[in-house]
Amino acid sequence: MKESAFIDSLKAIATHPAARGLADDCAVLEVGGETLVLTHDTLVEGVHFLPTDPPETVAWKLIAVSLSDLAAKGATPIGALVSYCLRDDPTWDAQFADGLAQVLETFGVALLGGDTVREAPGVWGCRMLGATLIGKAGAPVPSRSGAREGDALFVTGTIGDAGIGLLHAREKPLAVDAFVEAYRRPQPQLAAGQALAGSVTAIMDISDGLLIDAQRMATASGVAVMIDLDAIPLSALYSSIGFGHDRIARIDAATAGDDYQLLFTSAHPLPPLPCQVTRIGQMVRGQGLQLHDRDGEVPLPTTLGWEH
Amino acid sequence: MKESAFIDSLKAIATHPAARGLADDCAVLEVGGETLVLTHDTLVEGVHFLPTDPPETVAWKLIAVSLSDLAAKGATPIGALVSYCLRDDPTWDAQFADGLAQVLETFGVALLGGDTVREAPGVWGCRMLGATLIGKAGAPVPSRSGAREGDALFVTGTIGDAGIGLLHAREKPLAVDAFVEAYRRPQPQLAAGQALAGSVTAIMDISDGLLIDAQRMATASGVAVMIDLDAIPLSALYSSIGFGHDRIARIDAATAGDDYQLLFTSAHPLPPLPCQVTRIGQMVRGQGLQLHDRDGEVPLPTTLGWEH
Repeated sequence: MKESAFIDSLKAIATHPAARGLADDCAVLEVGGETLVLTHDTLVEGVHFLPTDPPETVAWKLIAVSLSDLAAKGATPIGALVSYCLRDDPTWDAQFADGLAQVLETFGVALLGGDTVREAPGVWGCRMLGATLIGKAGAPVPSRSGAREGDALFVTGTIGDAGIGLLHAREKPLAVDAFVEAYRRPQPQLAAGQALAGSVTAIMDISDGLLIDAQRMATASGVAVMIDLDAIPLSALYSSIGFGHDRIARIDAATAGDDYQLLFTSAHPLPPLPCQVTRIGQMVRGQGLQLHDRDGEVPLPTTLGWEH
Repeated sequence: MKESAFIDSLKAIATHPAARGLADDCAVLEVGGETLVLTHDTLVEGVHFLPTDPPETVAWKLIAVSLSDLAAKGATPIGALVSYCLRDDPTWDAQFADGLAQVLETFGVALLGGDTVREAPGVWGCRMLGATLIGKAGAPVPSRSGAREGDALFVTGTIGDAGIGLLHAREKPLAVDAFVEAYRRPQPQLAAGQALAGSVTAIMDISDGLLIDAQRMATASGVAVMIDLDAIPLSALYSSIGFGHDRIARIDAATAGDDYQLLFTSAHPLPPLPCQVTRIGQMVRGQGLQLHDRDGEVPLPTTLGWEH
C-alpha cells in the first residue's frame, strides 16, 4: 500500500459530510446551530521544523499552521488540544511551554487539553508534536474546490521569505534574521480569512508552495490555473537579495512553501482587506498549471513544492 | 523542568473553563445549545502498545481509549481526527486502515480528518499515533472530582484480564487468547457512561490501574477512598488461572491497568445499567487510599498502577 493508497483507504472511511471527503484541510461540523471547524496537524522534526529551531518557535509553528487552516475557512479560533512527547530535556520542555503560552495568547486560543507522553526508553526518533484546533465559522464555509473558469486568483501578503529562512536556518542555526523568523513563526491570516470567507469561490492556505497548492486548488475545482510569475508578490527584503527579481528567484519563492498566506479565487471585486492582496493569475478551462511571465510561457519547474 | 512542572506550566495556560484545569480527561465546551466533549490521546509503541501487536488492534486501541474518556463523560461520540505516521511498511499501513475502519464502524464514529506524516529519513523511533475524539454530552457533565464522603464506589465489568493479556502478549506475541484480546481491544463503556452520567458524583475510566485511578479520583475530590479487595470483580477466566482468588492475584488485577472500565461514585441507588456493576468500596474522610479484605487491612503495594 503506497501513501496514496493509504490516503484513499482513509477517504473511503470518511463518508460523513463533515469530513468533506478529506479533500479539504478542515472538517466542518454543524453542532447546535453553530458551524465548527476542526483541523489536526502533526509536526515532525527534520521534516516540518529543524532540530536546531528554538523550542518556543516549534510551539509557535505547531499552533500557527493549524490556525492557518482555520484562517482559510474564515473561522475564529476557540481552542487547541496539544500532543507533546517529553524527553529528558527539561530546558526544551520549558521553552516549548513558553512558546505555547505565547502563541495561544497572541491568537486568543484556549488550551483545552491534549496528551503528554514519553517514548519507550532508548528508542528516540524524530520529535513528533500534534495539535488539534477547533474554531467557529460562518456559513457557508468555503473550500478549496469551488474555483470556476474565469475566476481571478489572488494571494495575501508576500511569498518566499520563509523559504529563504529555511535555507538560512539550515546553514547557520544560530543566526536569526527576518527570513528565519518568517520560517519559524508563520503568521496565520485569520483576519483576512474572516473578511474573505463570504466572497471567495475557493480558498486555501499556502503551506507546501504557491505553485503546488495552486495546482491542488485547480485540480480540486476541476479547472486549470494560469499564474503570472511577474505578479507574485515578493517582500522588499526578498527583492533586495541577489537576483531577487529574476525568473529563477520568483520560481524559488513560488515553490518554497511555509508561507501560510491565503490563496483564493473570486469572480467579483474583493471586500476591504486588512492586508496586502495581489492578483497573480486566473482559473481557466482545462486542467493543471500554466506559468508565464513578461517573456512568455515559463516551463514548469521539476518540483512545484513540498510533498509531505 | 520535571514532568510535573511541565504539566503545571500547561495548567497555568489552560485557564478557559472548558479545559477544566486539565484535571479531567476531556475538555467540556459549550457550543450553541450543545455540550461538546473533546479528548486527545497519543499512543506510543513500546509504552501504550507492543511492537508485536497487530496493526489493526493498534488502530482499535487508538480510538477505543479516547472513546473510553468520552464514556466517562456520558457522551455520544461524533467523530475522530487521526494522526498517522507512514513508514515504508505498506502492510502495516493497510492493516491499520482496516482496524481503523472496524473500530469507527463498531462505535459509530465518523472519521473527520487528521494528518498523515513521514519521519525524517533514517530517524525512526517508536511509532506514535494520535487521535482526537469529539462527542456530545448532556449537561451537567460529570467529572472525577465530585466524590463526597460517604459515597459508594463502583466499577463496571471485570478487572485484570487486560493485565494478564499484556503478559501473555509479551511472552508469546503470536498467541492470541481472551486475555490478549482484552489488552489489545479495550471496550469503551459508552452505554454505561450514558446511563450513569446524570446520577454519579464522580466518574472516570480505568486506564492506568484500578488502585491508582481510584486514588486519583479521591485526591481530585478531596476525600479518601477505601477499597475492599475481595469485592473487586474478576472474570471467570481470571479466577480460573493459578491462584486467581488470593490477595496477590487481586492486587495484580487492581494495579494492572488497561481495563477501560468505568469507576464511579454515587450516594444513591443506581439506575438500570447495561452491564455488570460491582460495589467495591466507599469514599471516606481524609486523603489517600486504604485497602482491606476478609483478613483485615492490606498494606498498599509499592506500585498502584502505570504512571505514563
